[in-house]
Amino acid sequence: MEFFSKEDIKALSKITRLNLINSVTGYKSANLIGSVSKEGKHNVAIFSSVTHLGSDPAMLGFIVRPTTVPRDTYKNCKETGFFSVNAVTKSIIAQAHQTSANYDYGISEFEEVSLEPYLFENLAIPFVKESPIKLLCRYLNEYHIKENDTIHIIAAIEKIWIDDDLMQKDGFVSLEKGNIITINGLDAYCLPKTIDRFEYARPSYKAKSILHNGS
Amino acid sequence: MEFFSKEDIKALSKITRLNLINSVTGYKSANLIGSVSKEGKHNVAIFSSVTHLGSDPAMLGFIVRPTTVPRDTYKNCKETGFFSVNAVTKSIIAQAHQTSANYDYGISEFEEVSLEPYLFENLAIPFVKESPIKLLCRYLNEYHIKENDTIHIIAAIEKIWIDDDLMQKDGFVSLEKGNIITINGLDAYCLPKTIDRFEYARPSYKAKSILHNGS
Repeated sequence: MEFFSKEDIKALSKITRLNLINSVTGYKSANLIGSVSKEGKHNVAIFSSVTHLGSDPAMLGFIVRPTTVPRDTYKNCKETGFFSVNAVTKSIIAQAHQTSANYDYGISEFEEVSLEPYLFENLAIPFVKESPIKLLCRYLNEYHIKENDTIHIIAAIEKIWIDDDLMQKDGFVSLEKGNIITINGLDAYCLPKTIDRFEYARPSYKAKSILHNGS
Repeated sequence: MEFFSKEDIKALSKITRLNLINSVTGYKSANLIGSVSKEGKHNVAIFSSVTHLGSDPAMLGFIVRPTTVPRDTYKNCKETGFFSVNAVTKSIIAQAHQTSANYDYGISEFEEVSLEPYLFENLAIPFVKESPIKLLCRYLNEYHIKENDTIHIIAAIEKIWIDDDLMQKDGFVSLEKGNIITINGLDAYCLPKTIDRFEYARPSYKAKSILHNGS
């Protein structure tokens, strides 16, 4: 077992600490957030902190650090009130990763990294054409986390588009069928395979597998 | 493409909506949070919302809903000021899922689901013996998300134990080598395989693969 105390963590080099602390909380979601500036410039940036907050009303949250990349996303979300969330698939990991570079304000990462913006009729917000799950979200609020000067953005999920192949009858969306990836740490992109689904758990008996009879 | 408007989402049955909205934001981390009550009773419950907040100081956050399972975790974290975060591996997914059942206060889920508590010397907080990554966290603060009456708990990562096999020289922790799983929706457990790692991205050139020469 490797052991790190609080003091050990503090004493690590910056890159080692970033790798370590970004890995230890487990796999993270991979989403491209699309937005548009007041001047009409498109922006897209990868986020690994998008988290489900509740289903009724449908809400999500994500974390931004106003002083670092990608501050354009934050600015645009607040100015226009809307943004898109687009799932990252195996075939676009290199482009998705490249959106984390610190491009100047007003530069379209879509053009720089060769991702195709997709525009729905009557919506100014750009989506990522390649993504099998596209969400239109509305900015609701933000909470300043004073402990490390980050911002937790809270948003409503207003519209959802999902490729037919991923949808199951019970509302479950198979991320595996869409080749959607997950992130380990800062820079590792991983492709999951489903190993099991379980029934809703109750104290009185052991929840059974939904996928494997008899297990 | 399947399309859901805000009104469509609202009109879905509860279970269908839960499955849909819990899936569309992507893969989620899988962690067992261990805690202890003032009376010394152990508690463990699975969470899919643990998210990295920052590396210096090392911090994480997770979401609790005070009115539903697992409220014991929240109560214990606030009362004692500490809790453990333990990675979920392939071999314990059934037990981990079963911790989401609504056991009565004071019942030890460790005993009910057959997970082995691991106790470090001088620490009252129980860890999960089977987990290759164990974090000791200190409660720092909480933010009430008034939009849906949830609570965002903010904590400091104070101690880390990691199985040697997972640690790499640059601080990166290979979740794949620990057979750590990720969650799709409410109830699907998935095992990822790493497909690539990339260099730090800069605007001036394309970040290269760290794992595959020449790609």
